[in-house]
Amino acid sequence: MKLTIAREALLAALEPAARIIDRKPLRPILSHVRLVAEGESLAICGTDQDIEIRTSATAVIETPGEIAVPAATLHDLARRLPADEIVLALDDDRRMLVSAGRNRTRLPTLPSVDYPVIVPEGLDHGFTLAAEDLAQMLRETLHAASSDNTRPFICGVYLHVAETTEGPRLAAVSTNGSSVVTRRLLDLPEKASGMPGITIPSKTAGELLRLCDKAKDEVALSLSATKLRATRAGVTLTSVLINSAFPPYERIIPWENERIAIVETDALQAAVERISIMADAHDSAAHLDFSDGTLALTRISPSAGEMREEITCEFEGEPFSTAFDYRLLARIVANLPGDTLMLRMSSKRDGNILTPREGSPSMALLGRMHVARPVA
Amino acid sequence: MKLTIAREALLAALEPAARIIDRKPLRPILSHVRLVAEGESLAICGTDQDIEIRTSATAVIETPGEIAVPAATLHDLARRLPADEIVLALDDDRRMLVSAGRNRTRLPTLPSVDYPVIVPEGLDHGFTLAAEDLAQMLRETLHAASSDNTRPFICGVYLHVAETTEGPRLAAVSTNGSSVVTRRLLDLPEKASGMPGITIPSKTAGELLRLCDKAKDEVALSLSATKLRATRAGVTLTSVLINSAFPPYERIIPWENERIAIVETDALQAAVERISIMADAHDSAAHLDFSDGTLALTRISPSAGEMREEITCEFEGEPFSTAFDYRLLARIVANLPGDTLMLRMSSKRDGNILTPREGSPSMALLGRMHVARPVA
Repeated sequence: MKLTIAREALLAALEPAARIIDRKPLRPILSHVRLVAEGESLAICGTDQDIEIRTSATAVIETPGEIAVPAATLHDLARRLPADEIVLALDDDRRMLVSAGRNRTRLPTLPSVDYPVIVPEGLDHGFTLAAEDLAQMLRETLHAASSDNTRPFICGVYLHVAETTEGPRLAAVSTNGSSVVTRRLLDLPEKASGMPGITIPSKTAGELLRLCDKAKDEVALSLSATKLRATRAGVTLTSVLINSAFPPYERIIPWENERIAIVETDALQAAVERISIMADAHDSAAHLDFSDGTLALTRISPSAGEMREEITCEFEGEPFSTAFDYRLLARIVANLPGDTLMLRMSSKRDGNILTPREGSPSMALLGRMHVARPVA
Repeated sequence: MKLTIAREALLAALEPAARIIDRKPLRPILSHVRLVAEGESLAICGTDQDIEIRTSATAVIETPGEIAVPAATLHDLARRLPADEIVLALDDDRRMLVSAGRNRTRLPTLPSVDYPVIVPEGLDHGFTLAAEDLAQMLRETLHAASSDNTRPFICGVYLHVAETTEGPRLAAVSTNGSSVVTRRLLDLPEKASGMPGITIPSKTAGELLRLCDKAKDEVALSLSATKLRATRAGVTLTSVLINSAFPPYERIIPWENERIAIVETDALQAAVERISIMADAHDSAAHLDFSDGTLALTRISPSAGEMREEITCEFEGEPFSTAFDYRLLARIVANLPGDTLMLRMSSKRDGNILTPREGSPSMALLGRMHVARPVA
């Protein structure tokens, strides 16, 4: 194996593949990337055995071949070597000689035949959608996925076809048990109907978001109930999926909630962030009091002190009080789109809904906290 | 106690005082700052019992008084409150009411009489110097101070009057056992002669550097063998000092080293940083080979691989080899000033000197590593 490659091209192709690799893997080869030099390109593959990312870069191949090399070291070299052109070559001891400018580096290698592969069999369902649409769905939902390893079935984003009164919609949903967040697409992508509902692990969802973020083109998805493959801009991401059913969430959404308040997103976000100053490990309740034109947020912590903050609010009718976990509220408000937020609440029910507006494709359901208000 | 203060003024005065406070102190009052409202200003004091910082801010005092309040919470409030003017007042329960815009916050307090004070008695020696000169001395030396708590006498910067062939000079020195770094001032400040040598703890030295960094005015120091007080721009920092003798360092500096090489600082720094890519927990040796016009740096790690990098170098005579700890070398090269560096070495001695140039006020002595070069 011997090839010449532009430093920038090597760096761009290494970045996504090297990023998913475990820092301290169980087997040495899992700290490596696989390089395949063939034709007019260098193909790079990285995996943590759950996700696999394949990229490629244009290169001048003198001798084809393949090998596994330490991912972090090669990535550091691509970032810092003192020349724009790098020569990679295997020496007689099967070590990789990296030459650039006045720098000569030799890296240990492992045989590429031992490199693990996620077999992409049975990916029967396939469709494409705008990369930015997938990114927006993941951006709004990923933050609300559980990180509780004892409940692995909610540690990810559930992507499925939701039946709505306006017809079927592609929807992303996540929950941590106390809140449910969903974002729907206005159109169902052609060929997406009939796809199984899949739960994408949070790490994979984060990589998908990165792959699609700010992109103006399309991403191709192919999937089965257990695996997902996404392809965009020369990068192929393959991942195993969470192999348990996502809880049925739609029937618990209380769409008929009748007490409606509308606030400016920025004002609510700033107020919730200030409320968070009164942090307390033992209590996370923020009290919300709605009255004509005003929402008052109050947090009372025995140790940190108490805070009351008012913001302007479109609200009419009998004064109304509820309580939320201020940390969840802060995260949801920070991730919902739009300049204004609508809160749909009920005095009878546990769930309170936040949406950017009536009929919005974005929705968050936030559990109401049943806590007595301490005496201020 | 009741006063009105500009948010920016409160924030600027709180920042240095709040910064030194321990995150998890042994006694509750050590997570607090002391506020004293008197005359036309609010005085603020913070301490961790080793360092104390006093600042003040202009305020409109309606009722004078003093109290201790949680430092981190008040600092967060000053950063985030939604108005440019803040009213601070003690209520009947001796809680502090903070009012700003539509925000009302109540904080718990503690009596200010319990607030610890570092008594500034016996500060017999006093002098002033340019703040930037003190900052430069600390910037070049602090990074090389030991963090080994079993040798507390070198966990700081030694400030003293050094007798040189050109007369007495104010000098800062630090060591970690493997390297010694010093920076002298070209002129001895008036009244500094006769001061005792003092070892400033690293945390204090860091705060002093912050206090003097990029300042164009002067800093006043007053000191005894056990305490230091620095005053600049309305901030007074008082600190206890390390109460053990700093090791005699001057006699070990091998000024007569005769093998001299001159390199560009940037080129050496970049080469040492690249060498650091070959990281290895068990071995930190970088080999340096000097020959006519060339310095070759080599690092050979059984696990990470090996790297050789050449840079241009002014060097004449017999080829010469030495070895350094690449981590120490990287830190020293990054902190020595100047575009070129002079290395004064000897084949007979352990110590090798790095200075920006002949007769420079900056000097680093770096221990030579006696390691066999592995077969590449």
